[in-house]
Amino acid sequence: MLGTMLYGARDVRCEEVPEPTILRPTDAILRLSATCICGSDLWPYRGLNEVTAPMAMGHEYCGIVEEVGSAVTTVKPGQFVVGSFCLSDNTCPHCRFGFQSSCEQREFMTAAQAPLLRVPLADGTLVATPELPPDDLIPSLLAVSDVLGTGWYAAYAARVQAGSTAVVVGDGAVGLMGVLAAKQMGAGRIIAMSRHKTRQDLALEFGATDIVSERGDAGIARIKELTANIGADAVLECVGTQESMQQAIECARPGSMIGYVGVPHGVEFDGQQLFFSQRGLLGGPAPVRRFLPDLIELVLERKIEPGKVFDLELPLADVAEGYRAMDERRAIKTLLRV
Amino acid sequence: MLGTMLYGARDVRCEEVPEPTILRPTDAILRLSATCICGSDLWPYRGLNEVTAPMAMGHEYCGIVEEVGSAVTTVKPGQFVVGSFCLSDNTCPHCRFGFQSSCEQREFMTAAQAPLLRVPLADGTLVATPELPPDDLIPSLLAVSDVLGTGWYAAYAARVQAGSTAVVVGDGAVGLMGVLAAKQMGAGRIIAMSRHKTRQDLALEFGATDIVSERGDAGIARIKELTANIGADAVLECVGTQESMQQAIECARPGSMIGYVGVPHGVEFDGQQLFFSQRGLLGGPAPVRRFLPDLIELVLERKIEPGKVFDLELPLADVAEGYRAMDERRAIKTLLRV
Repeated sequence: MLGTMLYGARDVRCEEVPEPTILRPTDAILRLSATCICGSDLWPYRGLNEVTAPMAMGHEYCGIVEEVGSAVTTVKPGQFVVGSFCLSDNTCPHCRFGFQSSCEQREFMTAAQAPLLRVPLADGTLVATPELPPDDLIPSLLAVSDVLGTGWYAAYAARVQAGSTAVVVGDGAVGLMGVLAAKQMGAGRIIAMSRHKTRQDLALEFGATDIVSERGDAGIARIKELTANIGADAVLECVGTQESMQQAIECARPGSMIGYVGVPHGVEFDGQQLFFSQRGLLGGPAPVRRFLPDLIELVLERKIEPGKVFDLELPLADVAEGYRAMDERRAIKTLLRV
Repeated sequence: MLGTMLYGARDVRCEEVPEPTILRPTDAILRLSATCICGSDLWPYRGLNEVTAPMAMGHEYCGIVEEVGSAVTTVKPGQFVVGSFCLSDNTCPHCRFGFQSSCEQREFMTAAQAPLLRVPLADGTLVATPELPPDDLIPSLLAVSDVLGTGWYAAYAARVQAGSTAVVVGDGAVGLMGVLAAKQMGAGRIIAMSRHKTRQDLALEFGATDIVSERGDAGIARIKELTANIGADAVLECVGTQESMQQAIECARPGSMIGYVGVPHGVEFDGQQLFFSQRGLLGGPAPVRRFLPDLIELVLERKIEPGKVFDLELPLADVAEGYRAMDERRAIKTLLRV
């Protein structure tokens, strides 16, 4: 079959790879309905994470169960499933505490930019829909697998509450999903920090009430102005750089939480600064598995449409163009038909 | 009157100073019932904070209102009051959000190691008791002013819940008050990390269920052992060094919060490490004003006895010996009779 391999900076190839097979009794094999490219795939693509050997790319997925290992009991061939980008057993103490992304058996999915996918820990990772979903819902169900689940976790970690003011730093796909999540959690005011017209428009569609296009000190000043000099009740940091993190901290009010989901690259916090500014932090890989049942239901009931975040759709064979389009910010997020 | 001045490292003197007077209409003057020495006073005493000019020391206090400025309405001469070490107006948005320690008008109390004290922002900072308390409750009411309020905030920030397992890093007075707070909040298991017999005994008296005397990697291993390799549900960091903070982080379970109240000295957090270990952080100067009414009530009803944390009592004239005893860890906390 065709699969996506990253050979080095900006060298991503769609090439013949072996079909996956059941390796452990807890595995499942899925025939994917669609897959996509994640903003986090751009870190190694841009050479910011070292790539020493060809890497099988992709960690967002949904599709039909093709085969299951002998120990799998909760999903069966023929069912449509969505899984988390973090593999988890969903039974260990960390899973039961709601942090499946810190599962004792945690692994990160790879090789999902392909038509067939092996999912280890299938029982703890996958959630089946009651019946096969209509085709038009596939993009939204795919979004649940990571980008929506991650935006949702940012809003959860930032403790967005009904009526509160939330600021979203980052207008990538995760940031836009953070806007959607904050809206669902009842935020009264959602300020999206974005400089790009198409992303601003989508943020507004997802529920943003204000757009701030300034960055850095000017952006912080604008947030202060919009919040009567108080700062936001909740800040979602969806980028992962020192600059974006500093912006998030300074946009937040004392006593509030910053939910950060952009994988930090070169980010350091000064203890005394955090202490005296009294900002709280919670981040990490999102425990998407916790949110899957509720988010799938919201999609199936057509209450949310996170699939709108895909503004480019390509066949898998053109995956390299999908990466280029996102790298050059011509696309927010690329859906791949497999 | 006599007052306490720090001239430089380990040079603290009790000497004649001017009596305070009302400077602003929002001031009150208190005649203190007692005052004390704080663990944080040891930072400048030990030369770890620079002292460029003689500093008036002390920020924990309770006593009788002697005089109030013309704008003060909530307390009056003759009342017994307890105040926070953080001065606040208790009306600004940060105060209303429960973070009086980040009040728009925040100032930190000084000069409280003396018989008379000027309290700016009296209406927002002081809480009066319904009647004059009996003498034997003075130490406990004094403890509310900072050390108990700070331990309480650590437990709040760490989100200690009924039945949860809390670890307290640091066996100073604040750490011991953190034990007391975690007990009051219903923690099912409270593990105090302490190497000193007298502090261990007091921790047990305040509600600790386990004592871990190991530090560093051995201490972390012991916590893991005591928590079935899961880590604690809540960690209270009550020291403020890089070593203690690292210990706190590694004792916590993923998804939990570390409430940190030791003023960080040389503490840095690595963003990626915090991210992948999925530990949350909230710290800062404690918003004691928020907790004052409830904590005063608990003391007056004799449900808690935080005053037990004072294991040395001296007249103000012997303040230098009080500092020495705490510096040399001969005393946990020194109460000064004024």
